[in-house]
Amino acid sequence: MHELTVAAAGESGLLARIFPLLPQGRSTILGPGDDAALVAVPDGRAVISIDTQTQDQDFRLAWNSGYASTGRDVGWKCAAQNLSDINAMGAVPHTLFISLTLPPDTLVAWVEDFARGVRDAVHAFGADVAVAGGDLGRGREISVTATVLGDLGGRNPVLRSGAQPGDVVAVAGSPGRAAAGFALLESDVPHGSLGPAELALVGSQCRPVPPLAAGPAALDAGANAMMDLSDGLLKDAARLARASGCTLELDRDRLASFTRPLRAAADLLRKDEGGREQLVLEWAAAGGEDFALLSTFPGSTAVPDSFTVIGSVVPTAPGQDHDAVLRGGPGPTAWNATRGWDHFGAA
Amino acid sequence: MHELTVAAAGESGLLARIFPLLPQGRSTILGPGDDAALVAVPDGRAVISIDTQTQDQDFRLAWNSGYASTGRDVGWKCAAQNLSDINAMGAVPHTLFISLTLPPDTLVAWVEDFARGVRDAVHAFGADVAVAGGDLGRGREISVTATVLGDLGGRNPVLRSGAQPGDVVAVAGSPGRAAAGFALLESDVPHGSLGPAELALVGSQCRPVPPLAAGPAALDAGANAMMDLSDGLLKDAARLARASGCTLELDRDRLASFTRPLRAAADLLRKDEGGREQLVLEWAAAGGEDFALLSTFPGSTAVPDSFTVIGSVVPTAPGQDHDAVLRGGPGPTAWNATRGWDHFGAA
Repeated sequence: MHELTVAAAGESGLLARIFPLLPQGRSTILGPGDDAALVAVPDGRAVISIDTQTQDQDFRLAWNSGYASTGRDVGWKCAAQNLSDINAMGAVPHTLFISLTLPPDTLVAWVEDFARGVRDAVHAFGADVAVAGGDLGRGREISVTATVLGDLGGRNPVLRSGAQPGDVVAVAGSPGRAAAGFALLESDVPHGSLGPAELALVGSQCRPVPPLAAGPAALDAGANAMMDLSDGLLKDAARLARASGCTLELDRDRLASFTRPLRAAADLLRKDEGGREQLVLEWAAAGGEDFALLSTFPGSTAVPDSFTVIGSVVPTAPGQDHDAVLRGGPGPTAWNATRGWDHFGAA
Repeated sequence: MHELTVAAAGESGLLARIFPLLPQGRSTILGPGDDAALVAVPDGRAVISIDTQTQDQDFRLAWNSGYASTGRDVGWKCAAQNLSDINAMGAVPHTLFISLTLPPDTLVAWVEDFARGVRDAVHAFGADVAVAGGDLGRGREISVTATVLGDLGGRNPVLRSGAQPGDVVAVAGSPGRAAAGFALLESDVPHGSLGPAELALVGSQCRPVPPLAAGPAALDAGANAMMDLSDGLLKDAARLARASGCTLELDRDRLASFTRPLRAAADLLRKDEGGREQLVLEWAAAGGEDFALLSTFPGSTAVPDSFTVIGSVVPTAPGQDHDAVLRGGPGPTAWNATRGWDHFGAA
């Protein structure tokens, strides 16, 4: 029974097993079973985002360290990534739609585990989010697309384009953890030999926890600009800089609270002290998939407790591009944002 | 330049080329460029559906007849399939979110053509639909997921579960055309040799036109139940029967207006008259992907002009399953709904 495939279960059999495992919520007026769902949007406006994660591109099932990602990991990360996009606007996520593309030999147990991962993540984040509908289809590789809806409670969203010279730059969450976890998973260090600190970093890669209270808190505090960190701090900060027409100066010394918890992984992976220093900085400044928040606040604002100030917004110097630069400390004094993920490989 | 791949263009380069080609609409308050979009939902409720189409499962790029599906075909069908789900609830679609997964060697020209296909379809359907956001990612096969939002204008949706004994069963659109087109595309008859009637059937497979005015018209007329025909008339009618707890009796003679336009294709593909009769009936009764509407109306209702009455709703006989049956004419007198598509092959 544990070996039952989705091909043997059939579409309706699979749906009947998954539905009861998915999170319910107050937003759903009419759930699965018709051609479309009906969702309450009392604000009269919906914040909406769509994201796809594809096997071997956005997640891996088997890692070099011997760890095997579970359906629960993939479901959890799907929820994290999508809810983070709503958080990044200062809104509160309430509804998910999930489309799963599965090879016919996928085990039903994997899909059930996926559904439990979505549910467990939503609960762990303290969110009230329902899966109100979805789709099941067949393909050569596992692919997960989710659409998420969020509510602004009558307020206006925080955009990428609102940063002003004089703003402070702040981060909620801890960038670099997911990249350190990725490095451990891809390393030759057997997963079974990892200690608690390293396992926590692997957990940040496989089951990230976006700071969902911080987005609405930033909106309430008067943030001028915000986005989530999915492709790396410097690369995403450069995007915010370009959207806002200014420069973000980040202070390397202020990243210390982010790099400190990464030392355990660097100690395992690098023998030389200089290499370790460089590695933890790269993870924190250029590692993706943390789903932390990057915000700018007017200099006079009391930045919410969930944020760490890491720099400031300045006018872009004549002849320069709007960009993010990392200043201070040993090594390159101004590291600009040429690093990070691009899904098709170009800058 | 025509040979530029998405890998060479990069994600942001590709986005910059696609955005201007996609349809704009009045629903978008904040479009692409931030972590999420903001969409107007004045009703306070949103009708929402998600659907994925995957290469070689839901669409083919190369056909046996020599026809090569274009990006425009795939974009058009994406719009048709998704807008049809909103139509099936009696609602008016207004916003699309589209996530594209592409192999790195996909040509940028193909993706631009896809975007034009979405736009051309929306215009051809007479719809006011914006693409308010999306996602681009990399995979081994082309996969397209869209989420569509629709508006009920304060009214209540028509569900699958509302059919009552005494209702008439009616169809808007012409089931069987897409299946006949599929058979032509898969046949040994060269695409270049087809005449206008056959080409129109191929068009129904590659660029279907859902009857978007008919859904809201059915709601206004007081339809008791409705769904779109995506997996075949009999199979979908059986689903509606099960959801409603009754039996749908369809009259084979009343399918004549659907089977007649299919004769041109049957004449090409079958030499014997009996085989042709069987073929056109199979296409009309069991062929999928037409995105026609199946509705039931109270017997006293004036059925909207866009619908053709094809049968009636009766109580399910004791000991029988709720099902759809096709009665009358030569051949099997009661063909039940064991045919049609299941994405994983089981019934």
